[in-house]
Amino acid sequence: MDNFSFYNPTKIIFGKNTIPSIGREIKRNNIDKVLILAGSGSIRNNGVYDAVTTSLIDNKIQYTEQWGVRPNPTLDHANETIEHTRINKIQAILAVGGGSVIDEAKSIACGFYLDNLWDAFERKVAIANALPIFTVLTLSGTCSEMDSFAVLSNQTENKKWPIGSELLFPKVSIIDPSVQMSLPWHQTVNGAIDAMSHIMEFYFLGTNQEITLSTDEAMLRTLISSLDQLAINPKDYNARANIAWAATLALNGISGIALNGGDWSTHRMEHALSAFHPEIAHGAGLAVMFPAWIEYNKKFNRDHFNRWAKNVWDADSPETALIAMKEKYQNWGAPVTLRELGIKKEEIPSLVKNTFSNGPIGALAALSFTDVANIFETAY
Amino acid sequence: MDNFSFYNPTKIIFGKNTIPSIGREIKRNNIDKVLILAGSGSIRNNGVYDAVTTSLIDNKIQYTEQWGVRPNPTLDHANETIEHTRINKIQAILAVGGGSVIDEAKSIACGFYLDNLWDAFERKVAIANALPIFTVLTLSGTCSEMDSFAVLSNQTENKKWPIGSELLFPKVSIIDPSVQMSLPWHQTVNGAIDAMSHIMEFYFLGTNQEITLSTDEAMLRTLISSLDQLAINPKDYNARANIAWAATLALNGISGIALNGGDWSTHRMEHALSAFHPEIAHGAGLAVMFPAWIEYNKKFNRDHFNRWAKNVWDADSPETALIAMKEKYQNWGAPVTLRELGIKKEEIPSLVKNTFSNGPIGALAALSFTDVANIFETAY
Repeated sequence: MDNFSFYNPTKIIFGKNTIPSIGREIKRNNIDKVLILAGSGSIRNNGVYDAVTTSLIDNKIQYTEQWGVRPNPTLDHANETIEHTRINKIQAILAVGGGSVIDEAKSIACGFYLDNLWDAFERKVAIANALPIFTVLTLSGTCSEMDSFAVLSNQTENKKWPIGSELLFPKVSIIDPSVQMSLPWHQTVNGAIDAMSHIMEFYFLGTNQEITLSTDEAMLRTLISSLDQLAINPKDYNARANIAWAATLALNGISGIALNGGDWSTHRMEHALSAFHPEIAHGAGLAVMFPAWIEYNKKFNRDHFNRWAKNVWDADSPETALIAMKEKYQNWGAPVTLRELGIKKEEIPSLVKNTFSNGPIGALAALSFTDVANIFETAY
Repeated sequence: MDNFSFYNPTKIIFGKNTIPSIGREIKRNNIDKVLILAGSGSIRNNGVYDAVTTSLIDNKIQYTEQWGVRPNPTLDHANETIEHTRINKIQAILAVGGGSVIDEAKSIACGFYLDNLWDAFERKVAIANALPIFTVLTLSGTCSEMDSFAVLSNQTENKKWPIGSELLFPKVSIIDPSVQMSLPWHQTVNGAIDAMSHIMEFYFLGTNQEITLSTDEAMLRTLISSLDQLAINPKDYNARANIAWAATLALNGISGIALNGGDWSTHRMEHALSAFHPEIAHGAGLAVMFPAWIEYNKKFNRDHFNRWAKNVWDADSPETALIAMKEKYQNWGAPVTLRELGIKKEEIPSLVKNTFSNGPIGALAALSFTDVANIFETAY
C-alpha cells in the first residue's frame, strides 16, 4: 500500500430540514456579509432559497445575490462575480446549488485575491488566499461540497480545467437530500454516474489497497442499487440519502486512499467534450466515455478488472460486466455513445487534441494520441 | 436514513518513513516547545523515539519528555503531567505511542486549562480550550489518532470514563505501519479486535443506511482477512497497512454515519472490566464481551444480524457466524471467556454495577441490570 495524506476539514450537516442551520454556521465563523451564488433559479421553486435567506436574516447576516451560474461554469461569469464581490465587500461565498455553483464559488473565493483568476488554472500563480466558502447542496454528484477542487471553462480558449488548494475546502456544507426530489430524473442520473466515475478513476489503479478497494466496491454497489430504487420511486428519501452520501464519499478523499491520486483520463476526455459542447452535462459525458475507457484499458491490470466485474456487477468477466454496466446506464436513461450526445465523427481529432491541452494523460497506462483517438472511436 | 453531522479536521500522514515529517508539521502550526508523552519505552527500541527527536531538533522545536503512560491511562499520571506541562510552558502535546498515550495526551491538553480534570469526565465543566495535539501512532486500534474522544481511569473511584470535544481532534497524526512490525502479536490482535468492535458498535443499529452498512462490512472483512495474513507473516507490511487504515476508518466518523452515535454497551461492559482489572487489555476485554453481547441481542433486529452473518462471515445464520467469530478470535490467540481473563464468577455483580456507573446503557435495546448480568454470565 502506497503512502498517502488525508486532510478534509469540511463540516457536513446532512439530512432533512438542515438548511435552516446555515445562518448559524456562518455566524459562528464571525461573518456578517455573504454573496449568495446560484444557478438558473430552480432554488426559488423548491423552497431552498427561502430557507437560506430566512436563516441569514434570522442570524443578522447581510447578503447580496448573483445568479446565472451555468452547468459548465464559465470564467467570464466568475470574473464578473469577483468584481461584484470586491465592490460589495463580501466576506464569504455561499454557494446554493450543485457542483457547478460550488466550483464557481471556489474560483471566485480565490480569484478575489488574484489579479487574473485564470493564471491559477494555468498554474502561473499559486493560490495563497481565499474567501471562506459555505455551501447548500441541491444536486449530489461532484462532491465539490467536500473537496478542494474546482473546474471552470475558459470559453475563449476552449479549456475546461481544474484548480485545487486546501484553501478551497468549504467550511460547512449542508446536504438535505429531500430537496433533490424535485430534480429532473436525468440530473439525478448524471449525478450518480459522476459519483460512480469518481470512484472508478481511483479504483482501477488498485493493487493491494484492500481497505480502499472493498469500500469502493461497497460505494459503487450502493449507488447502483439506490439509483435502481429511485427509478421505481423518485420520492424515495432513503435511496436519495444513500446516493447523496455515497457521492460525497466518492471524492472527499476516502475512495482514493493510497491510490496515488487516481487516473482521471476519462475526466480529461469528458472535459474536452464539454469544452466544445458546454450543453453536454458532465455526468452524461462520463456515461459515454467510461465504458469506452474500460473497454480499451482492461488489458492492463486484468486481474483487477476481473475483481471489479465480480464484486460490483456479479459478472464473470470484464466483458460481461461492461455489457451490464452499459445496459444499466441505458435503463437509467443515460447516453452510452457519442452519437447520442450529438457529436460528429469528424470532431474526434480536435477532441483528442483538446484532451492533451493540459498535459499527458493516463496513470494505469500512459495514453498516446492514438490511444485516445481509439477510445473516442469506441465511444462513438 | 437519519440526519447526521460529520466533522474531522485531523490531518493524516500515512506510510513508510513518514515519522521524520512530524517536526515540520508542528513548526507549521507555529509551535516552538512540545511535551513528548510516551509509554513504557518500547519506542526507544524500534527507532521511533530517535526519528521523532531528530525531526524536532532539525526543526528547532524544544521538547521535554514524560514517560510511563499505562495501557489503561490513569488520572493520577495525567494530573502529574499537567503540572509538568504548566511548569515547562509547553505549547502542544506530542503523543508517541498507541491509543492509551494519545488518550492521556488529550486529557492533558484540556486539563491544562481546567482546575480539576476529572470534572470534565463527570461532565461538571465543559471543555472550552485545549493545547494542540500531535500524534505519532505506534499501535493501531483505538482510532484515538483521528477522533475527538479520550478514556481515562480514575483508580480511586474505579471509574474508566470517556470525554469528547472537537478541541481534542489531533492536528496531525502520523501513521507508519512499519513500526508496528515490532509489536507483540497479542497487541496487534487486540488492536484489530478493538477496531472491529468499534465498527460493530455502530453497525448493529443498522436499518436503511446502505452506504454505511456496506462500507462497514468491507472494513470488517478487510480487518479479518488482513489479520489472517499477518498471522502467517507478521512482517507483511501491506497487511499491517490495511489494518492500520481500517482501524482509523473504524472510529473517525465514517463507520458510524447516520447510525445515531452507536450502541457502545459492549464498551461500557469492557470499561467495567478494566476499571477493576487495569491489567486487562481493552481489545482482549472486547474479544470476550462482544460475542456475548451479540448472543444476547441478536433477537432484536434479527434480519440485520442475518445480514451481518452472511456479508461478514459468509454464514447462514447469526448462530453460525458467532461460532466462526469466536473460532477466529481464538485462532488469533484472543481470549473469548471471562475465565481466560482471570475474572472470578463472584465479581459479576460488581461488574454489572460498575457498568451502570456512568448512566443507563443500550441503544439497540435498553439493557437492565439483569440483562447485563446475563451477558456477563454468557461471557463467563
